Amino acid sequence: MSEPLSKEAFVARLREEGGRRYHDAHPFHRAMHAGGLSRVHLQAWVANRYYYQTRIPIKDALILAKSENPAFRRAWIHRLTDHDGKTDEDGGLALWRRLGRAVGLRDADLASHRYLLRGVRFACDAYVSLIERASLAEAVASSLTELFAPDLLTQRIQAWQRHYPFVDGAALAYFKSRVPRAASDAAEALELVVGEARSAEMQERCVAALVRKTEILWHLLDCIVAAHPL
Amino acid sequence: MSEPLSKEAFVARLREEGGRRYHDAHPFHRAMHAGGLSRVHLQAWVANRYYYQTRIPIKDALILAKSENPAFRRAWIHRLTDHDGKTDEDGGLALWRRLGRAVGLRDADLASHRYLLRGVRFACDAYVSLIERASLAEAVASSLTELFAPDLLTQRIQAWQRHYPFVDGAALAYFKSRVPRAASDAAEALELVVGEARSAEMQERCVAALVRKTEILWHLLDCIVAAHPL
Repeated sequence: MSEPLSKEAFVARLREEGGRRYHDAHPFHRAMHAGGLSRVHLQAWVANRYYYQTRIPIKDALILAKSENPAFRRAWIHRLTDHDGKTDEDGGLALWRRLGRAVGLRDADLASHRYLLRGVRFACDAYVSLIERASLAEAVASSLTELFAPDLLTQRIQAWQRHYPFVDGAALAYFKSRVPRAASDAAEALELVVGEARSAEMQERCVAALVRKTEILWHLLDCIVAAHPL
Repeated sequence: MSEPLSKEAFVARLREEGGRRYHDAHPFHRAMHAGGLSRVHLQAWVANRYYYQTRIPIKDALILAKSENPAFRRAWIHRLTDHDGKTDEDGGLALWRRLGRAVGLRDADLASHRYLLRGVRFACDAYVSLIERASLAEAVASSLTELFAPDLLTQRIQAWQRHYPFVDGAALAYFKSRVPRAASDAAEALELVVGEARSAEMQERCVAALVRKTEILWHLLDCIVAAHPL
């Protein structure tokens, strides 16, 4: 049985394995940032990504249920309220519907998932299934794509303001709200993963969970490109 | 296929099937209320029931994960924070540890579950398993033992103050806090169950989930009596 990696080496490996597979490098995102997408592309992305967004409170509730530690649950529970909000008008899901309206989608289009591509559904449901089956450490490790989110979000905000002026800038509130939150959420998650994954085997399982998560995000964009070629 | 019960008939059936199996009638509770328990009995009950209490946030997180409705999740999430608190010093689990100290148990005795009887563990774990497998309506129906909790809690508070004066009255704070909450939680849960269970089959499954929950609570006391005869 091999020795576990040091904390620093384990963190470096998570960053490396996750970072090189992160969907910022996907052709769809490259086209988005270069101003190469049509309104229909943006609509397809917002509508399909909304299904992903609706899975987040569900997977975070499953993560809460895996923990025996009230202090961990207290630290994690804001992720649910961040998305669900205090009313139907605030929170991440409401901000996403606002983004939908800004690209020309009705709330009902998002709520009914009428534009949801079957492969996107499978990938998002695979994320929930991954969390259901995973240990707490692996489940939290899968959320570490947040490590790479602030840069992507910042790039996205700038690109949308420059290249897609028909989208009301105020509708980018979700992205803006996520920049600082993704950074603090990722730091919190990284600490938990490093603390929980103390064997070489569990460290490998955490890396594998993060890799699977990057595949889910990547496949979501593959499906959109297949339906709406660049 | 039979017709579903009317709302009133379904509620009456839940009350009847749950009420006549509720553990207020268990010999251990009867002895508790009549002043017939020793300090060791109270310690065994508090220590074993603590494991049950630690399962509550876990089963409530699983219930959150079953819902596709942010409004439901917003209404349900306080059940987790009620038990976990804002710090390690408040919340239902902290109040239960305070009760433990008042009957002569150390926090470490509760945290390590050193007095946990194997059958109590099985019953409490069966509750979590029931929730994992259940539909949202059945999972919420299993919580409807709360319908009968306010009377039992009120009786318990009076009995402890009268018969067990060596227990500091301030340590009964958990029971006191639960009287109004159990009533409002039960009303909220009942509304959800009635709204979700619209077929005769689902109504029966909800009744069965509530019956199973009463069996879990009853068995917990059976195990304590077997280990500490009345």
